[in-house]
Amino acid sequence: MKLSTNEIRRIRSLAQKKYRDEYGLFVVEGEKLVKEAMDSSFEIESIYRAADIGEEAMSRISMLSSPSPVLATVRKPRTFISGSSCPDTPVRNGLYLGLDSLRDPGNLGTILRIADWFGIDGIFAQHDTVDVFNPKTVQATMGAIFRVDFIYADLAAAVRDFIGQGGTVYGTFMDGENIYNAGIRTGNDSPVMIVIGNEANGISAEIAGLVTGRLSIPPYPAGEPGSESLNAAVATAITVAEFRRRLVNP
Amino acid sequence: MKLSTNEIRRIRSLAQKKYRDEYGLFVVEGEKLVKEAMDSSFEIESIYRAADIGEEAMSRISMLSSPSPVLATVRKPRTFISGSSCPDTPVRNGLYLGLDSLRDPGNLGTILRIADWFGIDGIFAQHDTVDVFNPKTVQATMGAIFRVDFIYADLAAAVRDFIGQGGTVYGTFMDGENIYNAGIRTGNDSPVMIVIGNEANGISAEIAGLVTGRLSIPPYPAGEPGSESLNAAVATAITVAEFRRRLVNP
Repeated sequence: MKLSTNEIRRIRSLAQKKYRDEYGLFVVEGEKLVKEAMDSSFEIESIYRAADIGEEAMSRISMLSSPSPVLATVRKPRTFISGSSCPDTPVRNGLYLGLDSLRDPGNLGTILRIADWFGIDGIFAQHDTVDVFNPKTVQATMGAIFRVDFIYADLAAAVRDFIGQGGTVYGTFMDGENIYNAGIRTGNDSPVMIVIGNEANGISAEIAGLVTGRLSIPPYPAGEPGSESLNAAVATAITVAEFRRRLVNP
Repeated sequence: MKLSTNEIRRIRSLAQKKYRDEYGLFVVEGEKLVKEAMDSSFEIESIYRAADIGEEAMSRISMLSSPSPVLATVRKPRTFISGSSCPDTPVRNGLYLGLDSLRDPGNLGTILRIADWFGIDGIFAQHDTVDVFNPKTVQATMGAIFRVDFIYADLAAAVRDFIGQGGTVYGTFMDGENIYNAGIRTGNDSPVMIVIGNEANGISAEIAGLVTGRLSIPPYPAGEPGSESLNAAVATAITVAEFRRRLVNP
């Protein structure tokens, strides 16, 4: 099988959000990820194997520095990614994430992987958050993209709705309360959302004004961080791990 | 000031470990990081500003997709990176990391940033761990590279030494004991090292045979992880945070 120049150009164009939106497709690479796509509810458009199209064509369509033996084009779900379904009303004992305009594709993918590990019930991302179908994001999810409920939203409106429906919303802040001392709801009796801020600017003023609790990960020694902050995905991981720890060992 | 083609070529060559070793230099980009380099014990070789050399020359020497206004070439310390000094004998109440052949430059940089936040006393990296002076690693440290003690070592020998000097060595494993239930030494009375495994293969058999305790981060719900694993930097963050939490709140 020989790939036409047009076909190669079409696949390569999916590196850009504009064309992912136009074609309604995104790219998945690697044996493991392509298998996970096939086993998921997502619809595969085409599968390209180096064994069929040749190593050279594969290196032209691949977005990886070391092309893998297989690449698939997969249909984007219309409004959200869903392992099951993205709930309109939050689950009573659900734990959700809110992402306030994250910019780094790798961070976003790592956060989906964390969400998958810790059984997060859904992710609400501010509209201008980096595209979850960015190839770097998809690869960093290690397949979590096929299992975690993800929706782009007006995050302030989503937070207001969530609170209106009896939910509690926490945010991570540099000057929040020490997460290990704070009295937190862990989501066992009412839904909880944890909002993670933008890498450079943190949580926006509007959403900061809405959250019910401000949390902070303490440096060690207390009050003497070497680094000014933690990476957004790292902060997400430590925070979510602590919510799960306290739910299991109250 | 006009940069010669040779000068541009020399700086660009520092993207490769071979030339970083040959010249004994590495590259630091961005106002914040260059300032941290200048305030550190590291020796600056040259500083290049877009204002002096022009935007076009800057875009040629920069290793970032969006070049920053300033780039510095910095001398590599001979054997280790050091905020203070890398101890031959571990500090009595010290907490150390061992990195078993990490491959991803971004992961390594994020781990240095985590180590800086949580006051890690030193990092021992297996010799074939990705180069800590890789430009992606340096940028991901957000300046922690100038403050965290880091040494390349024969990790198995370092672990044996560490135990021989009264230290305890934990490793993170998929089938280790639940970190939240395990009785752990937190480093308040004797030194502790936490070993983090390679992204794909985990901790090598030799080092796995040496560690005093095997730990695991529980998924939620228990026994039902969506993802097969957590990213190496994320696992480091959750593990180190838990050691610090238990040291502060025993």
